[in-house]
Amino acid sequence: MEKKILVVGLGLIGGSLALALRGFEDFEIVGTDLSPAVQKEAAAKGAGDRVVPDPEPELPGADVVVLCQDPAGITGFLAEHRDRFKPGALVTDVCGVKTAVMAAAECLRPDVDFIGCHPMAGKEVSGIGNAEAGLFRNTHFIVTPGPRATGEHLALLRRMADWCRFGDVIETTPERHDQMIAYTSQLMHIIALSVCDNDELFACKGFEGGSFRDCTRVAALDPAMWVQLFSLNAPALTGVVRALEDRLRQYREAMEAGDREGLRAMLASASDRKKRIDLERARGDDVHPSF
Amino acid sequence: MEKKILVVGLGLIGGSLALALRGFEDFEIVGTDLSPAVQKEAAAKGAGDRVVPDPEPELPGADVVVLCQDPAGITGFLAEHRDRFKPGALVTDVCGVKTAVMAAAECLRPDVDFIGCHPMAGKEVSGIGNAEAGLFRNTHFIVTPGPRATGEHLALLRRMADWCRFGDVIETTPERHDQMIAYTSQLMHIIALSVCDNDELFACKGFEGGSFRDCTRVAALDPAMWVQLFSLNAPALTGVVRALEDRLRQYREAMEAGDREGLRAMLASASDRKKRIDLERARGDDVHPSF
Repeated sequence: MEKKILVVGLGLIGGSLALALRGFEDFEIVGTDLSPAVQKEAAAKGAGDRVVPDPEPELPGADVVVLCQDPAGITGFLAEHRDRFKPGALVTDVCGVKTAVMAAAECLRPDVDFIGCHPMAGKEVSGIGNAEAGLFRNTHFIVTPGPRATGEHLALLRRMADWCRFGDVIETTPERHDQMIAYTSQLMHIIALSVCDNDELFACKGFEGGSFRDCTRVAALDPAMWVQLFSLNAPALTGVVRALEDRLRQYREAMEAGDREGLRAMLASASDRKKRIDLERARGDDVHPSF
Repeated sequence: MEKKILVVGLGLIGGSLALALRGFEDFEIVGTDLSPAVQKEAAAKGAGDRVVPDPEPELPGADVVVLCQDPAGITGFLAEHRDRFKPGALVTDVCGVKTAVMAAAECLRPDVDFIGCHPMAGKEVSGIGNAEAGLFRNTHFIVTPGPRATGEHLALLRRMADWCRFGDVIETTPERHDQMIAYTSQLMHIIALSVCDNDELFACKGFEGGSFRDCTRVAALDPAMWVQLFSLNAPALTGVVRALEDRLRQYREAMEAGDREGLRAMLASASDRKKRIDLERARGDDVHPSF
């Protein structure tokens, strides 16, 4: 093997990437994690060709570095190791917010290429114990290239995504990513948490169906990580939360007023929107090329 | 076959029941539907041993009648056919609200036993074309007996539920059912609709993950039916919608204030609640016998 990919942080996403990337072209996959227990489990699972305790000796020889810690861990790592990356290296990350991470990456030397990534994959459980090579199958791989991103590195990321069996690669700006993710992902987590805050949660056993299990599934999150993700994207996220509050109030007011016709029109419109987006996706159309 | 179960309305639920019930003890399963096209498709699928266009000649010989129309269809059928049910018959339904249906069933003669039912099963698509015998596997079968319910009929419903492979049978009052269902099911539909009302819906392609697909799945509903379900349960439903609005506002205000510690405490509490309820269910405990 002539080249090296260093995966930093072997939690659910990093561990799964280190598993999935093995065998990719002529790259050696090296995993690293601060925790000795995680190192041991990652090595036993084969998360990487090698698992090492210290990233420092690996950095000068790493052609690709994938940062898979929480947001503070990623920005801290960039600042601490800024002078150790190999000239010409590709540095990337898997963080769920991109503007803040791209800003932190501006500390890197001009000969290091940082391209933000966000694999739209996950589970409601975390840690190396839940990592698996198939985690990324048919999910979106979002990339947010910085101003110095090279075509060569973008092509390399696409091949890596293909090898890990992502469904597609979406290229966009950090700002657009954060706006969209506030709506499609972070809001879903705020909803799940809010539903679980209801007093009836522990009384509703026997009355829950698929919709309740699906909607609340992601509430079992890691508070320390998600408080960072929410806080780093607060302007976009508070906007979509407020829009949801407004819309819920409109449904409630229609019911309180006994306005069946108004309510029926709202249901018809929203269900039609949902059916149209399903239909468009089922047909494979791309009628809204918005990025 | 000596006895007869008449399934009225062969949509997704009625059609699936007519499929699943075939072979149950010594009952003949007869399906009926107003639509000739539905009758034809139901007969072709085997939704019932026989499919008939008119329920009227079947009613005097039916030991069990399962009403599977929308709420207005069920209450209309009860009023129209009140004098045609067989003495001693069990009449039941599959409607997602129970107080209103139980009230409508008070028009029945005293020698007819009405026990409300709610199979907590469904799909985001409707109609006989999507009906399948396995729809009910491992879902809850909720029963709300009226004041005249006999133990014999409750036992019969339990055997029917077992034959259709429901996971369990939950017996409760109509009022408690409607309060719980407002939270676990109807609120999930209001959330899904409200999320789909966002302007970004058609722009978010490529940014959606499992949480977005899961949360919005049920938005593709039948407006004519759901406006009835929401309206018939408006007092309970508006209460849980308001509670959700309040909780969302609290998350938003914590983010707007930059109150990371407050936000972290909210996330820790809600995620812990979710993990606890998962744990209880995984262990099979029943620590909240609330009905």
